[in-house]
Amino acid sequence: MKKLINSPDDVIADALKGVEASDDNVRVDHANRVIYRATPKEAGKVAIISGGGSGHEPMHGGFVGIGMLDAACAGQVFTSPTPDQMLEATTTVDTGAGVLHIVKNYTGDIMNFEMAAEMAADAGIPVETVVVADDVAVQDSLYTAGRRGVGTTVLLEKIVGAAAEEGQDLGAVKVLAQKVADNGRSMGMALTSCTVPSAGKPTFDLPEDQMEIGIGIHGEPGRHREPIGDAKSIAKQLVDPILQDLDFTGSPVIAMLNGMGGTPLIELYLMYGEVVALLKEAGVEISRNLVGNYITSLDMAGCSLTLVKADEEMIRLWDAPVKTAGLRWGL
Amino acid sequence: MKKLINSPDDVIADALKGVEASDDNVRVDHANRVIYRATPKEAGKVAIISGGGSGHEPMHGGFVGIGMLDAACAGQVFTSPTPDQMLEATTTVDTGAGVLHIVKNYTGDIMNFEMAAEMAADAGIPVETVVVADDVAVQDSLYTAGRRGVGTTVLLEKIVGAAAEEGQDLGAVKVLAQKVADNGRSMGMALTSCTVPSAGKPTFDLPEDQMEIGIGIHGEPGRHREPIGDAKSIAKQLVDPILQDLDFTGSPVIAMLNGMGGTPLIELYLMYGEVVALLKEAGVEISRNLVGNYITSLDMAGCSLTLVKADEEMIRLWDAPVKTAGLRWGL
Repeated sequence: MKKLINSPDDVIADALKGVEASDDNVRVDHANRVIYRATPKEAGKVAIISGGGSGHEPMHGGFVGIGMLDAACAGQVFTSPTPDQMLEATTTVDTGAGVLHIVKNYTGDIMNFEMAAEMAADAGIPVETVVVADDVAVQDSLYTAGRRGVGTTVLLEKIVGAAAEEGQDLGAVKVLAQKVADNGRSMGMALTSCTVPSAGKPTFDLPEDQMEIGIGIHGEPGRHREPIGDAKSIAKQLVDPILQDLDFTGSPVIAMLNGMGGTPLIELYLMYGEVVALLKEAGVEISRNLVGNYITSLDMAGCSLTLVKADEEMIRLWDAPVKTAGLRWGL
Repeated sequence: MKKLINSPDDVIADALKGVEASDDNVRVDHANRVIYRATPKEAGKVAIISGGGSGHEPMHGGFVGIGMLDAACAGQVFTSPTPDQMLEATTTVDTGAGVLHIVKNYTGDIMNFEMAAEMAADAGIPVETVVVADDVAVQDSLYTAGRRGVGTTVLLEKIVGAAAEEGQDLGAVKVLAQKVADNGRSMGMALTSCTVPSAGKPTFDLPEDQMEIGIGIHGEPGRHREPIGDAKSIAKQLVDPILQDLDFTGSPVIAMLNGMGGTPLIELYLMYGEVVALLKEAGVEISRNLVGNYITSLDMAGCSLTLVKADEEMIRLWDAPVKTAGLRWGL
């Protein structure tokens, strides 16, 4: 295993030290492994938290800051944070206006966020939850009933974060979050496996001439394997299942061409060029885009495509200022 | 070879299509392979160009935009652009105030930029050049007489870009550029080789339990190989040679912990935490930092550390607004 770590047991604790040292937008509660906004939100504004297993950086900790998340709970690698972490984050960030939980659809995350929401409600904090289940690759998976939650989470955190920042109330923020979740679709592929530090070896074997189409962000199996094709044909295998699942014409679309962690930017740009050409052919108009590593799978080589069918309001919120380690503009 | 490409011959042309499609800050001259600012600078302001072999994305094309570069020339992978490209870029961006060439110290780049500067001068365009030679790992290398030019280039492009944007003249911009170059030091390491698309196989063999200390950004040999150590000891092997080469105490320092392309952010954060601890012990005060992929080596796994000994003026210019794909704040 070739990794820049001290020991598999200390990866999360050590990485959080680096996050704290590098990012002025956040402070880190090391005991609870929660990353908070350095400057809390003004009283009366809805707070937003997310979290999940580590290994997907910059998601979620890199999206904590002005205009996006108020806190992110870091679990062990590919393992849900605990209800205690989520409750601690929820009670800390609440300003009196309630808290939105952004949850990716994995059994552990769903269960733990549900428990935390109930405990928070018992403590008098109104909590709403949105579940992201946007991966068109498979219906159920190793860790999921229903679709897996992947790239739409990033775009949702940005859009909904802006709505909360401008003072929309919990009901409105929840409706918006659900709308983004309902209108987001993703599809991914891998050239290589990731290696979980505690396992010390690749999660799966993928021969030198093969790729996996429809991969999950934890190395869960996708749709099928096949010989590595050219970028054009790979792009088609990402675009087609997404467009077959939802009609993206007639609305402004936000696109993300995301790297899985081990793929360099030159390849992501190249893939984005192929994706754009296919979307254009299909009459889909991309209004905003991200190209880079946003929701990764440790050191996996590969990429994913996410499209969110937006409206003018979502685009306005997308363009609103944001100041986080992972996404920043206007500030 | 596991890469998201169409064919080794088309990598640069195809990637440039993706850059153009994704980045509103730039326009691409595909015939000459030059990336320009979408909106040219106002007349009377110094223009800045850089360029070099491709494979180091986001450098340099990702640093074209307001507050940084006016143009970047893209060579083939790890191969200098031609004098013709550089001359074309120079004449296009000049607003009448002259042009600064930012050149990394590799024999091909030096030779070609020199030729382009002479041709531009013949055409009546004043050109100044700054050469970055900041890599403390080796004195000469496969492609270099003197030290290799690496990470300081990124920080220099930001600082000098801000100076040009606010209207400093060519003489002042050149002096500032030289000052940043003189005060920057870098050191890198690799866990794996990169694979050049046209070669189709790793540039060098590095056994599963070995790492290379002092690696160059083209996979050039470094100082030595040794068994992979923990992050703490690797950080020490980056920090020590830099601090032995220049005294970084007593001034504000800008630090960059850079990924080589195949290393995920969780490991870069972890390494940054270790680097910060060592610098603190040594009495070095980090005022600003970057953690992420800024000057890469295709899909190489590994990282590099760059420190620039700054002053209040450089910090002020660092904080000035910038709007590029690779670095963005305030806009």
